[in-house]
Amino acid sequence: MFENSERTDLKNLGEFGLIEHLTKNIKLYDPSTTRGVGDDAAVLDFSGKKTLVSTDLLLEGIHFDLAYTPLKHLGYKAIQVNLSDIYAMNGIASQVTVSLGLSSKFPLEAVEELYSGVLLACDQYQVDLVGGDTSASKQGLVISVTSIGYASEKDICYRNTAGEGDLLCVSGDLGGAYLGLQLLEREKQIFLENPNIQPDLEGKDYIIERQLKPEARKDIVKLLADLGIKPTAMIDVSDGLASEILHICKQSGKGCTLYEEKIPIDPMTYETAREFGIDPTVCALNGGEDYELLFTIGQSDYEKIRNMPDISVIGHITDKASGANMVSKSGNSHGIKAQGWNAFKNSHS
Amino acid sequence: MFENSERTDLKNLGEFGLIEHLTKNIKLYDPSTTRGVGDDAAVLDFSGKKTLVSTDLLLEGIHFDLAYTPLKHLGYKAIQVNLSDIYAMNGIASQVTVSLGLSSKFPLEAVEELYSGVLLACDQYQVDLVGGDTSASKQGLVISVTSIGYASEKDICYRNTAGEGDLLCVSGDLGGAYLGLQLLEREKQIFLENPNIQPDLEGKDYIIERQLKPEARKDIVKLLADLGIKPTAMIDVSDGLASEILHICKQSGKGCTLYEEKIPIDPMTYETAREFGIDPTVCALNGGEDYELLFTIGQSDYEKIRNMPDISVIGHITDKASGANMVSKSGNSHGIKAQGWNAFKNSHS
Repeated sequence: MFENSERTDLKNLGEFGLIEHLTKNIKLYDPSTTRGVGDDAAVLDFSGKKTLVSTDLLLEGIHFDLAYTPLKHLGYKAIQVNLSDIYAMNGIASQVTVSLGLSSKFPLEAVEELYSGVLLACDQYQVDLVGGDTSASKQGLVISVTSIGYASEKDICYRNTAGEGDLLCVSGDLGGAYLGLQLLEREKQIFLENPNIQPDLEGKDYIIERQLKPEARKDIVKLLADLGIKPTAMIDVSDGLASEILHICKQSGKGCTLYEEKIPIDPMTYETAREFGIDPTVCALNGGEDYELLFTIGQSDYEKIRNMPDISVIGHITDKASGANMVSKSGNSHGIKAQGWNAFKNSHS
Repeated sequence: MFENSERTDLKNLGEFGLIEHLTKNIKLYDPSTTRGVGDDAAVLDFSGKKTLVSTDLLLEGIHFDLAYTPLKHLGYKAIQVNLSDIYAMNGIASQVTVSLGLSSKFPLEAVEELYSGVLLACDQYQVDLVGGDTSASKQGLVISVTSIGYASEKDICYRNTAGEGDLLCVSGDLGGAYLGLQLLEREKQIFLENPNIQPDLEGKDYIIERQLKPEARKDIVKLLADLGIKPTAMIDVSDGLASEILHICKQSGKGCTLYEEKIPIDPMTYETAREFGIDPTVCALNGGEDYELLFTIGQSDYEKIRNMPDISVIGHITDKASGANMVSKSGNSHGIKAQGWNAFKNSHS
């Protein structure tokens, strides 16, 4: 990937040299950052607010494949995946820390590329990079991100507070990121078999972007606040709709009815699923990595939300004994099962 | 390592199963933890205090060698290394998140062993494990820890606030962790050459423990508070005394005079260094991983500290133009250079 470009070996910089190089352009955006990088710990001031903390680990060969993932996109995505957890609490994301384990195949220019994606995400979402760690890695690329945010106690949305009769809502559309991944994997296989064949991704920009450059739904948190709605429960859709619905139901001690026909699926996602011979609904239920927000609202908030193009009401919460069920397009009802991502079985299935 | 014991494959548990299994015994200690594991983010309440955040990445083959590192010790150390950064801010460590990347060679029992060390450290230091991430890893073991703490603004000790004439102090003794590592590496080589030879670590418990089971100096933070001393600057000794002194001098825009004869070195460290034909002072200056606290205090605090057995005054801060110098036992003065750990050159040197 870097054969023909400039190559500065990290050995010559050393850890402190690399840190200094990477951190010299960091800008701070959030007033809660009292002190960012450069000391033993970052110092943050959330006076009067609750502090929110979430963390994710991204490993080469498990969470991403550098054969088709540009490093800048990867840096951007690593931040989005984490910010999404703070938004899922109905909070304001304010800081991130980014730790990198770098194998010797990465020259400085590659790390800069990755970091440029990190800093772009920080800029676009106005969050401050306040710390991290960098190290050599004997194997592949390791990215660990911790995101920090804040919220007033009254605004925080947990997973375990959905009430019977609440409406089940989801932002955006689902299944696209999974199909983007299938496309990229298919083209990689074709390329490996015959390197002369050019990748055929024409007209598939949207779902490719859903996979490579997801956007955490900060805008939905703001929209809900503008509409005067506080969700009764909320979670982000990282492992697939089915898995997230079951988290809310299980932790709230409730059941639910989900309507298949209400699940938002983009036409390109739908068409590509058909091309692959997969049921589009299954992609939405079990595909994962969409980073949309799944939330429940009281019925009295329905009028405020029903004309919002980016929010779909897809079902409602029931009592626990009824279980978590999906009513199919043909009218049959069956139990929802989480068949999402199991990182211990294989990388993406 | 686990051939003869029970072996539960992580594939059969899945990510959620593993998380549930590992987190069911988590106890909470700190009143600032409003919500721990089990949601998108932890919720913490530091009302009126500043939030402190620090993070470290530990990678197999770079930061630890499983040939001689018991997993329980490794889990314990991973926490200590991170808490040390919060104490270095003169703060109270209150929460940690722990992310694990696990290759398929690790059965559940191995992960439990690692986690038992994490939980032991949490119990002994009264910090709450409030989140994390677990994933398969294609390569070795990956451990990423983020530590969170708090402090009143007036109590926080930065690195860049040392004043001219301040006394340079360090807790405990130095160089032991490095020599413990040299011993373990030597025995590993002997074992690899002849598996019938038993390791010869007799009488070396102290320095082996300095390497495998370091203790972050929470007690020193408390002692300083009890003595009514606020250090003018503070940092933890993770990369070696020389490197940390230079951080304080550079960031404070000052110089210093360090007296070689004042550097605290345990007799076993001294003796073992001689065995290896290394200068004990070099081990203290450049060895790293001691996790002691290096700090500066005003001269008026000298009387409070001078009889404390666990604190050594090793020099003083000068003006910037004088540079950072060490006066050797023979009375010569020469510039201090950081030759500490460079993770990009090799794993331990």
